[in-house]
Amino acid sequence: MNNRRVRFIVAYDGTYYHGFQTQDNPALPTIQDQLQLAIKTLTNEEVTITCAGRTDAGVHARGQVIDFATSSRIPDEKFHLAMNSLLPKDIAVINAVTVHDNFHSRFHALGKHYRYSIYNNTIPSPFHRYYTYQIYPKLNRDAMFAGARAFVGTHDFSAFCAAGTSVKNFVRTIWHCEITEPEEGIFQLDIMGNGFLYNMVRIIAGTLIDVGKGKIEPSQLERIIQSQKRALAGTTAPPQGLCLIKVWYNELDFPFTLS
Amino acid sequence: MNNRRVRFIVAYDGTYYHGFQTQDNPALPTIQDQLQLAIKTLTNEEVTITCAGRTDAGVHARGQVIDFATSSRIPDEKFHLAMNSLLPKDIAVINAVTVHDNFHSRFHALGKHYRYSIYNNTIPSPFHRYYTYQIYPKLNRDAMFAGARAFVGTHDFSAFCAAGTSVKNFVRTIWHCEITEPEEGIFQLDIMGNGFLYNMVRIIAGTLIDVGKGKIEPSQLERIIQSQKRALAGTTAPPQGLCLIKVWYNELDFPFTLS
Repeated sequence: MNNRRVRFIVAYDGTYYHGFQTQDNPALPTIQDQLQLAIKTLTNEEVTITCAGRTDAGVHARGQVIDFATSSRIPDEKFHLAMNSLLPKDIAVINAVTVHDNFHSRFHALGKHYRYSIYNNTIPSPFHRYYTYQIYPKLNRDAMFAGARAFVGTHDFSAFCAAGTSVKNFVRTIWHCEITEPEEGIFQLDIMGNGFLYNMVRIIAGTLIDVGKGKIEPSQLERIIQSQKRALAGTTAPPQGLCLIKVWYNELDFPFTLS
Repeated sequence: MNNRRVRFIVAYDGTYYHGFQTQDNPALPTIQDQLQLAIKTLTNEEVTITCAGRTDAGVHARGQVIDFATSSRIPDEKFHLAMNSLLPKDIAVINAVTVHDNFHSRFHALGKHYRYSIYNNTIPSPFHRYYTYQIYPKLNRDAMFAGARAFVGTHDFSAFCAAGTSVKNFVRTIWHCEITEPEEGIFQLDIMGNGFLYNMVRIIAGTLIDVGKGKIEPSQLERIIQSQKRALAGTTAPPQGLCLIKVWYNELDFPFTLS
């Protein structure tokens, strides 16, 4: 009798995991396995959790969202604390709430915010190595800042999708795509949209890095998007720079106008 | 023929190391071993490096200073880059300069800046776990801020020194000791002085945390210092919160008045 659906907001350092999703090989550690194991220890139930976005191996999250059905009576305000006492230190449940029975983390998401972080300095940083992509040659800041704007809007993003996806519709809307430099030599690409194709943020990041290197002109980006050809876009930036920051469900706290 | 003395500024994530200093058991990885190995690969010389402050296992540095004699002709401006191509990613040489032959990283240091970082939140943070001491019960911010001032001045710090030291003189001068809260729930203890006893910063941090927990009143700290009794001070805070930020050598860039 699963008489309740619970939603967690979860943060994790993805460095040591083979991505969010349970792998065919049970020896490969995943975020999903760790969460399900902790839930089982607490509730004595074998649950299968659903998440908002299946992050790849090495990708991080500050605001991943998961949901599952349970008959547990652990109160919302204690559920996350009980989980954190069981989870490894690289995974934390930020909060827990009981949601309506039909809630689905992925299908009901209005939009997501991803951040890709780049450390651009001739000297590597021991403290940023797991959370940024370290690039030594100086990137052209202005060219990257200008290039980021090209991605905003509703486009067919076929050129920014890795092969091997089963998706049929490649049209997505990007509301916000901006690069900032919060500290000298640290670039943050913040991208918010209604959905993301497989590796889409990492290919956009890699393409903007190619812009920063002078391999691609910012003015070419519009045509690269229109081409729908993966080969014309840049390389896929490595996973450790990527973090899922937030998922929006509630129109009330949603900063964009849904089209 | 060692005809040149070179000084490096070194940053490292101490998580995986048994401290800075080479251990009797050569299987235990240390920062010193890694640096000497990279220097040997570059110069073909077996050097013994000297450092400004021998950090313990798990302690980090952003501005450790080391020096060594070499006959290598690698130019200063390329030495650190060559080192970084050989070092593991958790150690980086920030810069390299040739100094006068008598320079000594430890004996010539005018002062040092250490920072101890505390993450005080009911929810643990996967991203701060290696670089802060995570404490869940809410600490009394105002009491800790007030308590930090007690350490400023020239004192016998016997009460804040771990047993087993060969030091005879326990008098040190602390120029600056302040706790700030740069982000909500993150406390930083910044402490600058002319020298530090074994575990001194970690015992001061642990004592101020006991102040934050209400176990010690800020007004008691002066008497605890005067007592010179280790048992009256607080616990030793764990290593991962500690970082050696900077070492001063040159009176020109030195922010304090030397007494």
